[in-house]
Amino acid sequence: MFRIQAEDERSGARAGVLRTAHGDLETPAFLPVATKGVVKTLTPDELRSIGAHGIIVNSFHFLLRGRDAVAKAGGIHEFMNWDRVIFTDCGGFQLIRKDFSFHLSDEGMSFKLPDGTPYLLDPSGSLRLQEEMGSDVAFSLDDCPQLGSSEKRTLLSMERTTTWAKESLVARESENTLLFGIVQGGGDAELREDHARTVAELEFDGFGIGGLGLGEPKETTMAMVEASLKGLPSASPKHLLGIGSPDDLGHYVSAGVDIFDSAFPARNARHGTFFADGESHDIRKRRFEGVTDPLEKGCRCYACGEFTAGYIHHLYREKEMLAMRLLSIHNLAAVETWLAETRVSLREGTFSRPVRV
Amino acid sequence: MFRIQAEDERSGARAGVLRTAHGDLETPAFLPVATKGVVKTLTPDELRSIGAHGIIVNSFHFLLRGRDAVAKAGGIHEFMNWDRVIFTDCGGFQLIRKDFSFHLSDEGMSFKLPDGTPYLLDPSGSLRLQEEMGSDVAFSLDDCPQLGSSEKRTLLSMERTTTWAKESLVARESENTLLFGIVQGGGDAELREDHARTVAELEFDGFGIGGLGLGEPKETTMAMVEASLKGLPSASPKHLLGIGSPDDLGHYVSAGVDIFDSAFPARNARHGTFFADGESHDIRKRRFEGVTDPLEKGCRCYACGEFTAGYIHHLYREKEMLAMRLLSIHNLAAVETWLAETRVSLREGTFSRPVRV
Repeated sequence: MFRIQAEDERSGARAGVLRTAHGDLETPAFLPVATKGVVKTLTPDELRSIGAHGIIVNSFHFLLRGRDAVAKAGGIHEFMNWDRVIFTDCGGFQLIRKDFSFHLSDEGMSFKLPDGTPYLLDPSGSLRLQEEMGSDVAFSLDDCPQLGSSEKRTLLSMERTTTWAKESLVARESENTLLFGIVQGGGDAELREDHARTVAELEFDGFGIGGLGLGEPKETTMAMVEASLKGLPSASPKHLLGIGSPDDLGHYVSAGVDIFDSAFPARNARHGTFFADGESHDIRKRRFEGVTDPLEKGCRCYACGEFTAGYIHHLYREKEMLAMRLLSIHNLAAVETWLAETRVSLREGTFSRPVRV
Repeated sequence: MFRIQAEDERSGARAGVLRTAHGDLETPAFLPVATKGVVKTLTPDELRSIGAHGIIVNSFHFLLRGRDAVAKAGGIHEFMNWDRVIFTDCGGFQLIRKDFSFHLSDEGMSFKLPDGTPYLLDPSGSLRLQEEMGSDVAFSLDDCPQLGSSEKRTLLSMERTTTWAKESLVARESENTLLFGIVQGGGDAELREDHARTVAELEFDGFGIGGLGLGEPKETTMAMVEASLKGLPSASPKHLLGIGSPDDLGHYVSAGVDIFDSAFPARNARHGTFFADGESHDIRKRRFEGVTDPLEKGCRCYACGEFTAGYIHHLYREKEMLAMRLLSIHNLAAVETWLAETRVSLREGTFSRPVRV
């Protein structure tokens, strides 16, 4: 399923291929976030033109709304009309970020569905949902503690996540859905490595590193990722959940992370920030008025090929949605291009960690 | 410049071609509205795929914002990256619809630019602006009275519009910009026809019928359009300004209108209404949940070719912008397709006025 094609000797970076029921995902890979079944503002054709081969959908969201519609369509791929790889998030992380009332127990997460019905989301139910959606890569339900939780709470989350991981593995039914286990362990390197070793012993197809990017200092995130990676098998694909700003990718690719997902590039685009020449820029700035160059010279994305920075500045100032579309295309393409070049450099043995996208 | 290719004997409908500096516009034609230099949510590529050959931009808006940027780009076509026909509205109509403070006199419209500078928009200045933008078809500045204005006010607006029309013709500089005169006359058929005859005597390349669609009853609009057409030369192209709902087109094409522009189809799309099988539908309705058919069976637009009504229903409920894009594409394509079929039927002598798009 996962084959490592090349490794950089000086760092832990590697290039590989994850084989899924909907084609290959070359790693290191970045998955644009399609929480509700759409990468905001964009079509699947645009994602293909950007070079994306995989996206991540939040299965939990479809539990609240759209589950029947996806089933009627024959799965999430058909529903969205996206024939490439789809990862599905189990939703533990989304729960704690949402202004959403739920109760956590050893059995799972209890809450009310929009129609008022009480619902218990347990490990097997979460996997059933993801398999039913036709996910290519599902995650076992985890108990993701808030930032700054006590050691007691962290230990409980590790224990539950482990128990749930085992239950998820037992509940597997679909051969088309790979299953990744999730590493927790809060902000303590020892607990992280410890939990990674525990989860690593289970028969997962890959591993997600969870519970990070919640607002902790970047040094903590980095240390926790490294501790998690230390406890995970080298041969398996590792997915750093929810992290992927242009500043982060170089570091974590070097550390050995294979897969990223993040709303950061597209959300920044919608807020007027675009990436060019290794920096972030604000399209609203007066200095872009009348500029006849593209957002980034040499960029081969649709936005840069067709439009000037001056036009996009005008659209953004006029609050035209097309501005958000074009900036989203550019930012996601910048990330995809950076990763494509990184994969080539790893295969050709010329990899050197760049500062940022 | 304008050639009539076929006429329907029983009605006044005709098919023709308007030759412009950016190619031919086959009539009857519908121009999607790109007030601020963009048909909301869409790219020029999407407009081409819809079958649009011309759009209409509001020159007045660029006076307030973006004029320099357009000049730096080399014109509005280059600015937007749209190489087909562009009409520019002179802005008289926009002024009265806007919550905008201005003073009207025989000289023109006085108001303050965003930087506070007092500005007088007069007929020659309006034309200069439109020519400078590289408009293919400009309109002479008109004095558009509010709905329900007195006869005195209507007569003044006609007189001013005529004087301004003459001044515009004198001010012409660009050979690449056709110039259309505007017919006013309020809600009085006699005044309408009278003003049409007056404007018709001037050397315009075509005529716009203005001051309608302001909220008056549909019967009034229809009567005023007919009275205006009666006073205009048969051989010239006639543009009904700002009107083009699916219900309207059949009637006005039959009456002899050649060109339409309206924000109606795209605005309705953004509000969740789409046109299919001769009716308007609300995508938010529960009955579209999980529907695996396209918005309209047999429709060849991108939205219908790629996505189900159930998916678009889901996107709209989730307030995803992609829903607005796809509905806009569908509605504009429905109008364009209807007009393309109408043109064929006129040329083949099989035209019969359909009830609606």
